Amino acid sequence: MAEADFIALLRNIADSPSARGLLDDVAVVDGLVISHDTIVEGIHYLPSDPPASVAWKLVAVNLSDLAAKGAVPVATLMAYTLSGDSDWDAGFVEGLSIATRHFGLPLVGGDTVSLPAGNARVTGLTVIGRTQGNIPDRRGAGVGDGLFVTGTIGDAGLGLDVAKGDAAHDEYLLRSYQRPEPQLAAGRLLAPSVTAMMDVSDGLLIDAARLAEASGLAVMIDLSAVPLSPSFRAVAGGDRSARLRGATAGDDYQLLFTSALPLPPVGVSVTRIGHMMRGAGLKLTDGDGEIRLPDRLGWLHA
Amino acid sequence: MAEADFIALLRNIADSPSARGLLDDVAVVDGLVISHDTIVEGIHYLPSDPPASVAWKLVAVNLSDLAAKGAVPVATLMAYTLSGDSDWDAGFVEGLSIATRHFGLPLVGGDTVSLPAGNARVTGLTVIGRTQGNIPDRRGAGVGDGLFVTGTIGDAGLGLDVAKGDAAHDEYLLRSYQRPEPQLAAGRLLAPSVTAMMDVSDGLLIDAARLAEASGLAVMIDLSAVPLSPSFRAVAGGDRSARLRGATAGDDYQLLFTSALPLPPVGVSVTRIGHMMRGAGLKLTDGDGEIRLPDRLGWLHA
Repeated sequence: MAEADFIALLRNIADSPSARGLLDDVAVVDGLVISHDTIVEGIHYLPSDPPASVAWKLVAVNLSDLAAKGAVPVATLMAYTLSGDSDWDAGFVEGLSIATRHFGLPLVGGDTVSLPAGNARVTGLTVIGRTQGNIPDRRGAGVGDGLFVTGTIGDAGLGLDVAKGDAAHDEYLLRSYQRPEPQLAAGRLLAPSVTAMMDVSDGLLIDAARLAEASGLAVMIDLSAVPLSPSFRAVAGGDRSARLRGATAGDDYQLLFTSALPLPPVGVSVTRIGHMMRGAGLKLTDGDGEIRLPDRLGWLHA
Repeated sequence: MAEADFIALLRNIADSPSARGLLDDVAVVDGLVISHDTIVEGIHYLPSDPPASVAWKLVAVNLSDLAAKGAVPVATLMAYTLSGDSDWDAGFVEGLSIATRHFGLPLVGGDTVSLPAGNARVTGLTVIGRTQGNIPDRRGAGVGDGLFVTGTIGDAGLGLDVAKGDAAHDEYLLRSYQRPEPQLAAGRLLAPSVTAMMDVSDGLLIDAARLAEASGLAVMIDLSAVPLSPSFRAVAGGDRSARLRGATAGDDYQLLFTSALPLPPVGVSVTRIGHMMRGAGLKLTDGDGEIRLPDRLGWLHA
């Protein structure tokens, strides 16, 4: 069963308003924003990634969901599987200590279990955050809203190639893959001005398509407007195929949002890459006319 | 690294009061009681257990932590690993639907991931509960407090043998193993009268030793007072070795607590099985004199 089919089954039993239809990145309980993200060795990270980086990434991908709701981190609980490798486990705790201190995220509980020998590590966090105002949903985009993204797109995808040894070393790209920075401050500043917001985890195109579907609209993205970093351009170039590669790679942990308002300065770059329309689905232009969608819109988990 | 050593490392970074020193079953955030328990195929349940029973057990073991804090269930987030077996996954959702409805536990979010082929399933819940008064801790037992347990002990351990085909079929014992009932109502009624409370998950003796250690005390348990069910007695008898077997088997999900007060009626049987003393460690009597501890006090995860 594919993840989307399983979640469709779960949706039948998740009828509380707190669940946001299982269409958003978080649940909202008693005004608290709560999310759980799991990462699996060999699926979400490489077995060769340093354990401290894996811990950082676990914290960052979870905080990215809070960022997309404009929430301040309050606490986390960790679900950890012991790997049978004490050095790895100790390295993980060291990285966890650094990351939780860096983001001001108190570890308050969780569960540690042992896996049968030879199993891939499965590690999750539950993160709890607090907001001061409304909590942006994926479902709130309106017709005519602009579609925006923070930062640059595609860097982590190239960084994965660096980590695998498939591309020349580039510290910025590798760091984008191993040590993403959740956009907590930008999320807080943007929250009052957006109609919908989410983070880019599986790929810009697939995630924009999900935001549009959750909002019951279509989305048009101008591929030529997708922001690329100098490192990305140096390695992959900036033509249509490079842009498609970046926009489908995932692991960006930038904020993707819709708004019809002027936006406040948020300390990072914000780029308008498209707009919302009546209808359904994702449409792509290249500045001139509409172009064909790639076969794969992002990191589609089997 | 053993679980206890890993948790000792985590304790260094879990200095928020919400964490309760990672010595309790739950964290307390903004007055909400939050817990996460993971179950692993082949470790916490048999690969041959029916998926609907696994779902029930996942819900029950998590709610048991809320029960021990006198909390009412508010919401849950699930971390699920797709097994590659659609029938199993669908059966699990069916069981989850039944269990969450039975216990009034709204599913509000979580994460679904795919595992590399051949990996054991790893499934966790984060449960959120609410209390009306103080939240019992493992750390509150006082010298002279009585030690009490709800229900009967050892049934699930024998039920595991039934599930494995190592013992004759007994519906009550099998049900105790596959469909434990968290003591939510009893926990709520007991909470105002206890000094410390936890649930029995790894075994009565090991869990009592943990309660004593968290409270900085010793505990004396009268093995002859440990309550046994008629089914347990019929299969295993009631002599010292049978009682030791029951008291170290685990998976009971009864409440273990200390109190110096008269106890209210709670709808299930409550048995005084010992008391708290100055000092450290677990001591065992048989009604007459002190007896030697068994080598294994419970289900010690490697």
